[in-house]
Amino acid sequence: MPHIPISEDMPGPRGLMTFRPETARPLNELAEVLLRGPSTLSQAERELIGTFVSSENDCRYCQSIHGALAAHLLDGDEDLIRQIKCDYSSAPISNKLKALLAIAGKVQQGGKKVTDEDVESARSLGATDLEIHDTILIAANFCMMNRYVDGLSAWTPSDPAFYRSRAAMLAAHGYMGSATRR
Amino acid sequence: MPHIPISEDMPGPRGLMTFRPETARPLNELAEVLLRGPSTLSQAERELIGTFVSSENDCRYCQSIHGALAAHLLDGDEDLIRQIKCDYSSAPISNKLKALLAIAGKVQQGGKKVTDEDVESARSLGATDLEIHDTILIAANFCMMNRYVDGLSAWTPSDPAFYRSRAAMLAAHGYMGSATRR
Repeated sequence: MPHIPISEDMPGPRGLMTFRPETARPLNELAEVLLRGPSTLSQAERELIGTFVSSENDCRYCQSIHGALAAHLLDGDEDLIRQIKCDYSSAPISNKLKALLAIAGKVQQGGKKVTDEDVESARSLGATDLEIHDTILIAANFCMMNRYVDGLSAWTPSDPAFYRSRAAMLAAHGYMGSATRR
Repeated sequence: MPHIPISEDMPGPRGLMTFRPETARPLNELAEVLLRGPSTLSQAERELIGTFVSSENDCRYCQSIHGALAAHLLDGDEDLIRQIKCDYSSAPISNKLKALLAIAGKVQQGGKKVTDEDVESARSLGATDLEIHDTILIAANFCMMNRYVDGLSAWTPSDPAFYRSRAAMLAAHGYMGSATRR
């Protein structure tokens, strides 16, 4: 159970955000801009990056909800989510996305792990400066949210149906619009 | 040098934020609320938590600027900053802050490292639920910013005078007010 008083019907960051609405606003705005704002990376690609980092950080809530959201955006392809988490290099995704996932994996380990070669490899496969910037900030953002959720031991449902339903809500209303919805 | 085109006169996150102003706004607002907003933790205590986490993440820019800001808020006591980074348990700070630094250190390693005992220890020394929440989110936020700055290899000045001067600017104008100032 959580380290601070949070109602059990408020799983994941939502309960933490209800406890502290002043920090919830910029956290949700950051997620909205990074994951759903205008970008040459699709929403599904950005959610896959977040899912992969959350999986590497072993954050069950975040990898479940963002994996469910990515699957929702990809016509329900939950097998792809499992492949990305298990071995993205053999998954049926673009080589550019594989190079961006490699950068995200380095960021998860620590910022200094990202090398010039990692960035050049992504660039040679078509990644733009903005895509490289956003990949690094998305990965860093998930390193924050994973620690926020697990550091406070947020409620984490075990039923996959919860995540599928919440993912549909997030896809429809976004991070800011879903903050107070059940 | 940075992995994306950033002018050398824009060190640290400022250059990254100029490159991507849409994400800069919520990032700066989050820092403003967490580190300078109303709280029973002093601004100096919060900056010490951020400095310690940045040091554990080996992020030179962040530990330098937030260490300089903490020292600025503590009448220039740069020795204390060195002690906090080297061995906070023997530093002349409250036992409550030591317990919160212990939690922040766990968050740096990973959210799941924070135990019920860590939280009970802080609580027994007077920490409130909000202080525990904020300590964990501050630590998580620095895990993001450290990765953002080092992941993109932001410009990092070596002259301590730069950090003292920039710290005075941040103390006077805050995170949102300093974003576009030199």
